[in-house]
Amino acid sequence: MGRKVCQQDHGQSRQNSNGHSNDHLFSTHVQAVIVQLSRPVLRPGFRPDARLWRGGIEGNFEVTISMYDASVGLFVPYLRNLSALLDKGVAYAEARKFNPAVLLGMRMAPDMYDLAQQIGEACRHATVAAALLADREPVALPVLEHDMAGLQARIATSIEFIESLPRAEINAAAERNVFFRLKNGTELPFTGRTLLLTFSVPQFFFHVTTAYDLLRHAGVELVKKDYLGRR
Amino acid sequence: MGRKVCQQDHGQSRQNSNGHSNDHLFSTHVQAVIVQLSRPVLRPGFRPDARLWRGGIEGNFEVTISMYDASVGLFVPYLRNLSALLDKGVAYAEARKFNPAVLLGMRMAPDMYDLAQQIGEACRHATVAAALLADREPVALPVLEHDMAGLQARIATSIEFIESLPRAEINAAAERNVFFRLKNGTELPFTGRTLLLTFSVPQFFFHVTTAYDLLRHAGVELVKKDYLGRR
Repeated sequence: MGRKVCQQDHGQSRQNSNGHSNDHLFSTHVQAVIVQLSRPVLRPGFRPDARLWRGGIEGNFEVTISMYDASVGLFVPYLRNLSALLDKGVAYAEARKFNPAVLLGMRMAPDMYDLAQQIGEACRHATVAAALLADREPVALPVLEHDMAGLQARIATSIEFIESLPRAEINAAAERNVFFRLKNGTELPFTGRTLLLTFSVPQFFFHVTTAYDLLRHAGVELVKKDYLGRR
Repeated sequence: MGRKVCQQDHGQSRQNSNGHSNDHLFSTHVQAVIVQLSRPVLRPGFRPDARLWRGGIEGNFEVTISMYDASVGLFVPYLRNLSALLDKGVAYAEARKFNPAVLLGMRMAPDMYDLAQQIGEACRHATVAAALLADREPVALPVLEHDMAGLQARIATSIEFIESLPRAEINAAAERNVFFRLKNGTELPFTGRTLLLTFSVPQFFFHVTTAYDLLRHAGVELVKKDYLGRR
């Protein structure tokens, strides 16, 4: 069973790209509890040891996935990957001397969104989900046009908006009631957690993958690493 | 700020389909801390109130996403959705009097996996990721055949295996080192959390979505709800 034990390194908080620790709220709180416990208590012979307690408390604790990592932490890198996929589509069109906008009109089926719309949907699901979790209005994206520069700007605007949202608000949204408004006006009720796991993350990956599939179907030379991003 | 506060219902633990509370380890542990804090301490006038502490401790706590919910909780329903997509493909083939196995040979591009292989990859990524998190050997899946019954059995076996894995092991795997072995033998190092967020979940949705796209491209009448599952 030894190697199945949760391996936490409590000496070094993990730092993410914008410098916050992923678990600073947890750590701060545990410190506060330890301070209380390290005071002498009345029971004879009982003298809590802060170091032991620290191990006991933190060692038993479940390390999980934060709402921020499961939303912003997925949407931003995969929007960047989507942008890179489009760049490869443009390079392919230029090499074969056709207008890259032709790619943007391609569809899997007559009643499915075309490539431009798939990109629009990926941006929409990422920005709306992140905004709902942060309890902010989503960024206003312009009317969708079938031009590569406009779509790249749309992706960049989406990333900038998502990265501007407050981490603490998103991390506190797991149990909050949120409502996703469909284009027909219907509002679907979720909690923050069910929004991500049952709707927004699957929707987001659907549209990024379908964009990849359309480009591959058109002959653009992509490999799975272009979808996954370079490690 | 009021409505942004984390809304937890501590009176009723959430029950999932196999009867365990999603956060029973957390709850058990917090109870243990409260017992310690509710003992009288020496500092004059300081008399901790378990109810206040309970609110203080739990109210400040981040409710997050468990490793189990972010793995088994995604893989199982989307494998069921994948199975239902295939059923619609079979019904389409029967209505038009062609062999359903023709669908299984369809590809987006000559150097992409065909539909049968997309289904095989969805099963592989789901079972291997869940096995790595649970520190078990993944279920042995038979050699991939291009027949619908075999693929439906493959999906059913995958679901059965994933559902048999111990929740507590998976929930404790966020920080554990795991290695994903590629088909060429290369081992990619991850923690349980990075395996899910940067690799297995995106891979899984890639293959489920591409299966959907291939069926749509072939003319099977599917709508987005067939991908997302009925709520």
